[in-house]
Amino acid sequence: MPTTVPALVTEAAGKPLERSTIERRDPKPHDVVIDIAYAGICHSDIHQARDEWGGSEFPMVPGHEIAGTVSAVGPEVTRYSVGDRVGVGCFVDSCRECANCRAGEEQFCTRGEVQTYNGREYTGEQTFGGYSTQVVVDEGYVLRIPDGIELDVAAPLLCAGITLYTPLTHWGAGPGKKVAVIGMGGLGHVGVKIAHALGAEVTVLSQTLSKESDGKRLGADHYYATSDDETFTTLDSTFDLIVNTVSADLDVERYVALLALDGSMVNVGIPANSASIHAFSLANGRRSLSGSKIGGIRDTQAMLDFCAEHHIGAEVETITVDDVNTAYDRVVDSDVRYRFVIDTASF
Amino acid sequence: MPTTVPALVTEAAGKPLERSTIERRDPKPHDVVIDIAYAGICHSDIHQARDEWGGSEFPMVPGHEIAGTVSAVGPEVTRYSVGDRVGVGCFVDSCRECANCRAGEEQFCTRGEVQTYNGREYTGEQTFGGYSTQVVVDEGYVLRIPDGIELDVAAPLLCAGITLYTPLTHWGAGPGKKVAVIGMGGLGHVGVKIAHALGAEVTVLSQTLSKESDGKRLGADHYYATSDDETFTTLDSTFDLIVNTVSADLDVERYVALLALDGSMVNVGIPANSASIHAFSLANGRRSLSGSKIGGIRDTQAMLDFCAEHHIGAEVETITVDDVNTAYDRVVDSDVRYRFVIDTASF
Repeated sequence: MPTTVPALVTEAAGKPLERSTIERRDPKPHDVVIDIAYAGICHSDIHQARDEWGGSEFPMVPGHEIAGTVSAVGPEVTRYSVGDRVGVGCFVDSCRECANCRAGEEQFCTRGEVQTYNGREYTGEQTFGGYSTQVVVDEGYVLRIPDGIELDVAAPLLCAGITLYTPLTHWGAGPGKKVAVIGMGGLGHVGVKIAHALGAEVTVLSQTLSKESDGKRLGADHYYATSDDETFTTLDSTFDLIVNTVSADLDVERYVALLALDGSMVNVGIPANSASIHAFSLANGRRSLSGSKIGGIRDTQAMLDFCAEHHIGAEVETITVDDVNTAYDRVVDSDVRYRFVIDTASF
Repeated sequence: MPTTVPALVTEAAGKPLERSTIERRDPKPHDVVIDIAYAGICHSDIHQARDEWGGSEFPMVPGHEIAGTVSAVGPEVTRYSVGDRVGVGCFVDSCRECANCRAGEEQFCTRGEVQTYNGREYTGEQTFGGYSTQVVVDEGYVLRIPDGIELDVAAPLLCAGITLYTPLTHWGAGPGKKVAVIGMGGLGHVGVKIAHALGAEVTVLSQTLSKESDGKRLGADHYYATSDDETFTTLDSTFDLIVNTVSADLDVERYVALLALDGSMVNVGIPANSASIHAFSLANGRRSLSGSKIGGIRDTQAMLDFCAEHHIGAEVETITVDDVNTAYDRVVDSDVRYRFVIDTASF
């Protein structure tokens, strides 16, 4: 019999999240039942709860930055035991058969991976996310949270952390490399920490210098305001890698010009509009404009292990379930340093 | 005293090339005097002779695909001797001090490399290209043409060859990799040969199937018409690397969708207009849109050595100096299979 659990539910696009209940399935043989301790608030939660990307399904329980503890396991589960500290990220299943799944890149499953919320299991059931006290997930899509990270600061790593870890490692951030992170928000601040821990020389490119002291405390070597035109002169042809965390439309040409020989600019945000780029800007310096999207299960685990080793968590502001609607507005206003996490003890 | 030599000269934008003479400098200590045997006609010669890119300087002697024999050397020259088979590509000097020059990527010299023609030496003298019987070049910017390649089919390798060799090798074309070449022209046909010799599975994407038999003879495994919409369905998410040799504006989104996980589309042509690309198209599959421009001296030599080892030359139509104006019109009409080379014995 399914279990009824508390959750924050929105009934239609833009309606407030309200305390309610949902049902979680009985654990199947390979399922892990997780008591959720914290759920991070990702900007994409807001986009989907407000149906800003289209196609949202209601009722909706957002949340794909989930950290908690295993409270039960199905009979065939081998990887996790009751009491284990675990997390769940942006997807809870994938086809496991396509070339991308077999390559460990389930986020690009060609059948379409099953989103943690606002999605459908392959059996047809709607998925509900982490703004709740419990979730049931196949063990193949559960991550282990090492002892070195507290659960509250670990939660945002499941989306924000892997979103930055993938491009940084895939494009070789490390000693001797100059890396810029555009945007000092929920994504960017984790990127600064990870890039610094990887040994890169890290520059933050932010609209203003208002968060400069935070940026440097978190590991940035340099901090520049993009509202200052001189920044673009000073930093011309400088970076091996630029990770753009900003979802607003930027003048991509201006930033590509900051790339050194063979440099890459990688977008992890998805602006609404297409970017315009001239072939000459890329040919000159053999530059690349690229994109990246979260990461597979293997890499997400590697990210958590790396973060534990380097004592990296998100900078969080912990809130109760009753604060979430206000928190949404504050995220939209960039008024959070740097990630909200919901303490599910407040249900 | 400078030497007066025959050359094909155009006196103003769009004026025909006419037989005339120019002066070549006395060899300086590190200079090599080259008796030119063949000069290839590159589409960029036409753009510059007709001032289609702006900034052309007249009188102009085009030609940056030069193959010939050393006829004299300056007293300090150590690398070449009289009688050596040599070539000259798109540039004849660079600052030798900037990071890119020191990295062997002189084509990205931050001071600006000295173009073989339509350029200025750092001393201020105008440069004249290969549509002539002789050229004088510093030995550091002269390439050795191995015995395995005839001079006529070697000439176009100095621009077309390196333009394709660089992206193919830089982005890892080789066994197990699926590579597409867009365009089956002067650049593309050499790309097919090199990609095949590198061991990649090669697909040509051409507007029509008119050159399919040539493409397959030169090493293509597959050949598709881009005028057929089905091509884009069939080849969705297929290629590790797409090298775009077409300078016309393409719908980049359509081609990026043909990239497999972690695939790159590299433009080597420079269309007049900017391309439009949505961040989602790149994030989905962690794809890249990139650019590449010829190659440095070290890589150009490696390309010639590779081509000699694999018996690769351009497919050429040899013409006399009196055929060049007609040949220009035929290049613009894509009526050449696949590169014109001027036989300088016809001067």
